[in-house]
Amino acid sequence: MSITPETLEQALNWRYATKAFDRARSIPAQTWAALEQSLLLSPSSYGLQPWKFLVIRDRALRQQLRPHAWDQSQITDCAELVVFLGRRTIEQADVDTLISTTCQARGLASEQMAFYADLLRRNVVEHAQVPAAEIAGWNGRQVYIALGTFMTAAALLGVDTCPIEGFDPAAFDRLLELEAGPYRSWVVCAAGYRAADDRYAQLAKVRYSAGELIEVR
Amino acid sequence: MSITPETLEQALNWRYATKAFDRARSIPAQTWAALEQSLLLSPSSYGLQPWKFLVIRDRALRQQLRPHAWDQSQITDCAELVVFLGRRTIEQADVDTLISTTCQARGLASEQMAFYADLLRRNVVEHAQVPAAEIAGWNGRQVYIALGTFMTAAALLGVDTCPIEGFDPAAFDRLLELEAGPYRSWVVCAAGYRAADDRYAQLAKVRYSAGELIEVR
Repeated sequence: MSITPETLEQALNWRYATKAFDRARSIPAQTWAALEQSLLLSPSSYGLQPWKFLVIRDRALRQQLRPHAWDQSQITDCAELVVFLGRRTIEQADVDTLISTTCQARGLASEQMAFYADLLRRNVVEHAQVPAAEIAGWNGRQVYIALGTFMTAAALLGVDTCPIEGFDPAAFDRLLELEAGPYRSWVVCAAGYRAADDRYAQLAKVRYSAGELIEVR
Repeated sequence: MSITPETLEQALNWRYATKAFDRARSIPAQTWAALEQSLLLSPSSYGLQPWKFLVIRDRALRQQLRPHAWDQSQITDCAELVVFLGRRTIEQADVDTLISTTCQARGLASEQMAFYADLLRRNVVEHAQVPAAEIAGWNGRQVYIALGTFMTAAALLGVDTCPIEGFDPAAFDRLLELEAGPYRSWVVCAAGYRAADDRYAQLAKVRYSAGELIEVR
């Protein structure tokens, strides 16, 4: 069932931030379905899943977004464009939804989840662990777990990606009509297939060494 | 070279936040080497790699850390314990190091990287894109990309993990002697193999549906 270390390393070395996508290629349905699963199955703190994923297929909307993302061609040219959103707050209602979903999935009575519900309420809603001012940022970090999961999954499936932080979140939130809602945009990821002439595909990867970044204590 | 969508989905469904690790099992050297590569090859904004990974093998140090992580047994019982660190700031020196490393890896003269160096200086060091007060949090989010990459890579290699945010970063930073340095701890991840009697392995996964979390525009 597992893959080999070689397969993993090969895929991670094959991956790069794709600059030019092949506009003619789309992602096969089954492959895209697995990538959607990689988003949904991503781990998050307490299993709160404080995120949402907008898949932008409308060509006109992509054209509108592009000037607010440094006019990067990936916005319009990729096969699938995902805007990663994070919740602005965590309310008691969010905890209640998680608890009831858990009870349903696991066939539990709500009393059996009382300890966990209480922990979540104290730590998150009443901010014993995460201060109110840090909730949005905390959710933002969870979103980046999903981003890492998505890009790694894509590389293993032979799908190219380009993570995009070079965009104006305020403009995106306005164009995506998120301003009055519970979510804000954090990061964008383009997915599809590299163009044959993307010269970035040939460039050597630039990485610091294990000796510089990994320290055994 | 790629894996199938089924293999990916199987691995992601097999993964869970492991509560009880098998203390007798270690991770084979080649598998661990690939997991280290997954950390080093993780994508980061501008390729800055504003992170460091501490692998805590010292049993006494793990015992010291455990009470500051809600006394969770994973801290002492897992095969490999990784503390994910992020840089507190990005200085011009960090940009210079990235540029010179890039020139070396790609056989370029520094003038050929002048445009990119300038962009980085303006956007990050002079904060045109990332405000000074947000640099640490921005680096923190990059660290979570590496976390997502690491956990996904581990699942595919058949290695269990448990992401741990339930710890006191100040206490960890003190015990790991990070306080005066350029890095702070953001998140911890235990890796190894589930104990045969970890009842959490049997619980149904709790996830919101694609209909709730993925929206096509």
